[in-house]
Amino acid sequence: MTQFDIARRCEVSPEMKTAAEIEGVDTELLREGIAAGTIVLPSNQNRHRGKPTAIGAGLRIKVNANIGESSEGASLDDVMTRLGVALEAGADAVMDLSTGGNLDDIRRSVLAGCPVPLGTVPIYQAAIEAARDGRGLTGMDPAELFAVIEKHASDGVDFITVHCGVTRETAKLALEGERLTGVVSRGGAMTICWMRANDRENPLYEHFDRLLEICRAHDVTLSLGDGLRPGCLADGTDAAQVAETTILGQLVLRARSAGVQAMVEGPGHLPLDHVAANVALQKRLCHGAPFYVLGPLVTDVTPGYDHISGAIGGALAGMAGADFLCYLTPAEHLGLPNPSEVRDGVIAARIAAHAADIVRLGTRARAWDDEMARARSNLDWDAQYRLAINPARASSRHERAGEVACSMCGPYCVFSLLGKATTKEN
Amino acid sequence: MTQFDIARRCEVSPEMKTAAEIEGVDTELLREGIAAGTIVLPSNQNRHRGKPTAIGAGLRIKVNANIGESSEGASLDDVMTRLGVALEAGADAVMDLSTGGNLDDIRRSVLAGCPVPLGTVPIYQAAIEAARDGRGLTGMDPAELFAVIEKHASDGVDFITVHCGVTRETAKLALEGERLTGVVSRGGAMTICWMRANDRENPLYEHFDRLLEICRAHDVTLSLGDGLRPGCLADGTDAAQVAETTILGQLVLRARSAGVQAMVEGPGHLPLDHVAANVALQKRLCHGAPFYVLGPLVTDVTPGYDHISGAIGGALAGMAGADFLCYLTPAEHLGLPNPSEVRDGVIAARIAAHAADIVRLGTRARAWDDEMARARSNLDWDAQYRLAINPARASSRHERAGEVACSMCGPYCVFSLLGKATTKEN
Repeated sequence: MTQFDIARRCEVSPEMKTAAEIEGVDTELLREGIAAGTIVLPSNQNRHRGKPTAIGAGLRIKVNANIGESSEGASLDDVMTRLGVALEAGADAVMDLSTGGNLDDIRRSVLAGCPVPLGTVPIYQAAIEAARDGRGLTGMDPAELFAVIEKHASDGVDFITVHCGVTRETAKLALEGERLTGVVSRGGAMTICWMRANDRENPLYEHFDRLLEICRAHDVTLSLGDGLRPGCLADGTDAAQVAETTILGQLVLRARSAGVQAMVEGPGHLPLDHVAANVALQKRLCHGAPFYVLGPLVTDVTPGYDHISGAIGGALAGMAGADFLCYLTPAEHLGLPNPSEVRDGVIAARIAAHAADIVRLGTRARAWDDEMARARSNLDWDAQYRLAINPARASSRHERAGEVACSMCGPYCVFSLLGKATTKEN
Repeated sequence: MTQFDIARRCEVSPEMKTAAEIEGVDTELLREGIAAGTIVLPSNQNRHRGKPTAIGAGLRIKVNANIGESSEGASLDDVMTRLGVALEAGADAVMDLSTGGNLDDIRRSVLAGCPVPLGTVPIYQAAIEAARDGRGLTGMDPAELFAVIEKHASDGVDFITVHCGVTRETAKLALEGERLTGVVSRGGAMTICWMRANDRENPLYEHFDRLLEICRAHDVTLSLGDGLRPGCLADGTDAAQVAETTILGQLVLRARSAGVQAMVEGPGHLPLDHVAANVALQKRLCHGAPFYVLGPLVTDVTPGYDHISGAIGGALAGMAGADFLCYLTPAEHLGLPNPSEVRDGVIAARIAAHAADIVRLGTRARAWDDEMARARSNLDWDAQYRLAINPARASSRHERAGEVACSMCGPYCVFSLLGKATTKEN
C-alpha cells in the first residue's frame, strides 16, 4: 500500500505521523491532504529516511537541492560533499542528477547518506547507458528505460522526474513555434531526440500505466516533469507549456486512480507578472497537485546571480501557492556548483520559501521573525546569531563597535539611542 | 529656477534633455512627469553631474547605494573605494551617510567623484557636531541644523533625506503602540531624542518653509524620510507608519507649491503580501510622488543575506510602482559593507529593478533578456558574458566542458542535443 492508499483508507502511517510532527501540524490535516492528492509524502517503501517530508497545501514550502556530477571523471567524494553541504544548509529534499561517472554507485551512496526524500531523473541513466554502449542516446530501448526506473525504485528513490507530457504533439508546439530558446529541459530534449530518431511516441506517455505499476509497487512519487518549460522570459506561458501542463493534469488523475502520489513541475523562466498566473493555471489544470517550481527566474541576464533572480520568482510563486522550490545556485547557466555555491543556493531558496510561508502560514511561520525582531531591539547578539538563517555566516560577519552596537551605525545605533523604552516585550 | 519650475513653464533644461537621452525616453514625457511631480530630476545647480538621472513614473527603476563611514577613525580612501565599486556595479545614485571622520571632507570628496545624483542626511552631521561639541546629540540648535542643510546645498548635494513626518504626534504612535522594534531610522531616532530632550516639535516639520527656501535656492530635491518605518515584519503598515506617510503627502503638496522637487521614502521590513499595498498607499497619500524604498526586507531572519531578502521585496515593490530602490548589502544588520559586499548589494538591487522594469516598461526593458536568450541558444559565450549583469563574474565563473557546453550539463547540453533547429532567430 502506498501512502496515498493508506490515507484514502483513513489510516495514518508512521511516516505521516513523523512528518506531521516535524512540520508541526495535525496528523489529520496531513492525511486529508495526501488522500486528496494536494499533499505528497515521498517515501519509497524500500528504505528508511530519518526525516519523512511532506510537500503541499497548508504546509511549509520545501526546498530541493540538485546535486550530482556531469563529467565522466566524476568523483563520488565531490557528490557526497555537495550532499553534506546541501543538508547542512537546510535542504528538505535532494535530487541526484548525475550524468557522469558510475551512476548506480553515485545514486546508492547518495541514498545511503540522505535522510530526506531523494529524487532522480531515470531517463538520464537509460539514455546515457545507450550512448556509452555506442548506440547513441536515441538508441535507448523503452524496455531499458523501464528497467532503470525499476532499478531506481528498488534502490529506494522517493520521487522520479518523468517527462510524460512531452508528446509528439506538444513537442511540435515548442519546436515549430516562435520560441527563442526551444526546449531547455535535458530530459525533455532527450525525449524529443528519441521520438524524432525512432519516429515513435514518448514511451513514458504511451506506457504510463507501466510506470504507474512500478511506482505503486514501491510507493515512488511521480514528479511530472515540465520538459517544455520556458527557457527564457519570452517563451513563458506559451501554447507548448500550457498544452504540456494540460496533459500532466490528466496524468495526475490517472496516478490518483492507481494509488500513486504525484506532483507537477513548473518553470523555469517567467516575467514577474506571469508568476502568480502560472501557479493558478497549474493548480487548476492539475487538480490541486503540489507544484514544484525551478526558480522561476524573473530575468535572463543574471548568470552568476541566478540564485537571487530565482529567489524573487520563488517567493512570488510560493505566495501564490507553489509548494516546492528547486534551488538555483550562482553557478546556474555557467557550470556545476561548488560546495559554497550549493550552500548559497539552498539559503536563497529557503529565504524565498520562508518569505512566502509568512503569508501562507501566518504566525506559525512569522514567530521566527518576531523572535529575531525582539533579539535585535534587545541588542542580544547571541540570539541574533542563533536565529539567523545561517548562524555561522551571521556570527562571523558581525563587526562589533563598542559595547553592543555593530559597525554599521557605531555609537548611533537606534536601539542604543532610544533604549529599551521604545520596544515592548511580549 | 528649479527643474520643477522649468518643467512647469513647459521648457526643457539641458539636464532634462541629457536625462531623457540616457533613459531612452521622449523629453516631453520626462518634462511632463517633472511638472506633475511624478518624476524628480535631482540636480543641484551648484555642481555638474556627468549623468543627470531622473526617477519616477514611466522610467527605469533606479538603484541607490549607501556609502560612508561610521567610525571616528574613518578613512576617506575606504569611502572612495566603496564609491568606485558602487558606480562600477551600476548604482544610479549614491548617498553619503557618514557619521564618522571629517564629514565635510568626506562629502566634498564624494561629490567631486560622483557623476550621478548624490544624497545626504543632514541631521547626522548637525547632531554629531553637537555631540562632538560636548552638548550631546540633543544639544543641537535648530539653527545649526539649517546651517548644515545650507552647507550641503551649497556644496552641490542633489537630494537630502529629511524626516519631516516624525512629529510629536506620530512618534507617540510608534513608541506607545505595540511595536516590537520601535523606531529603527537613525534620523528618526535622533529627531525623537531631540524632541524629547527639548520638549519641542521637530524643527524640520515646524520650519518646513525654511527648508523649502534652501532647497528652492539650489534645486535640492527633498527625499521625505520615513523615520517611523517598520523595523520588522510585525511592525509593518501600522498606524504610526501610515500617519507619517499622510503627513509626508501634505508636505509633498507644499513642496510642489514652492517649486521644490520631492520624493517619499518607504519601508523597510514588510511581509510579502503588504508590499503592493504599501506602494498603492504611498502613491495615493503622497499624490504620485516618486517612491523610494529600502528593500523592503520580506523576512527578518537573514543577516548575511539581506541583499536577497531585499531583492525579493524590491522586485515586488517595483512591479507595484516603486521608483527607486535603496540597496541592502549582505552586511546589513551586522556591520558596514566591504567593497565586495557593496558590489553584491548593487547587483542584487539591480536584479530586482530589472525584473520589475520588464513588467513596467515591456519590451523596452526585456530586449536585454531576449538578446541573452538568443546568445544562450546559439551557445555564444562571448555574447553571454557581455550581456550578463556582471560580465566579469559570468566570464570568470564559466567552466567550459568540451567545445561549446558548460560543465553543468557537459555533453548533454540541450542546445547541443537539439541543435539550432529548435530556435528561431529574429
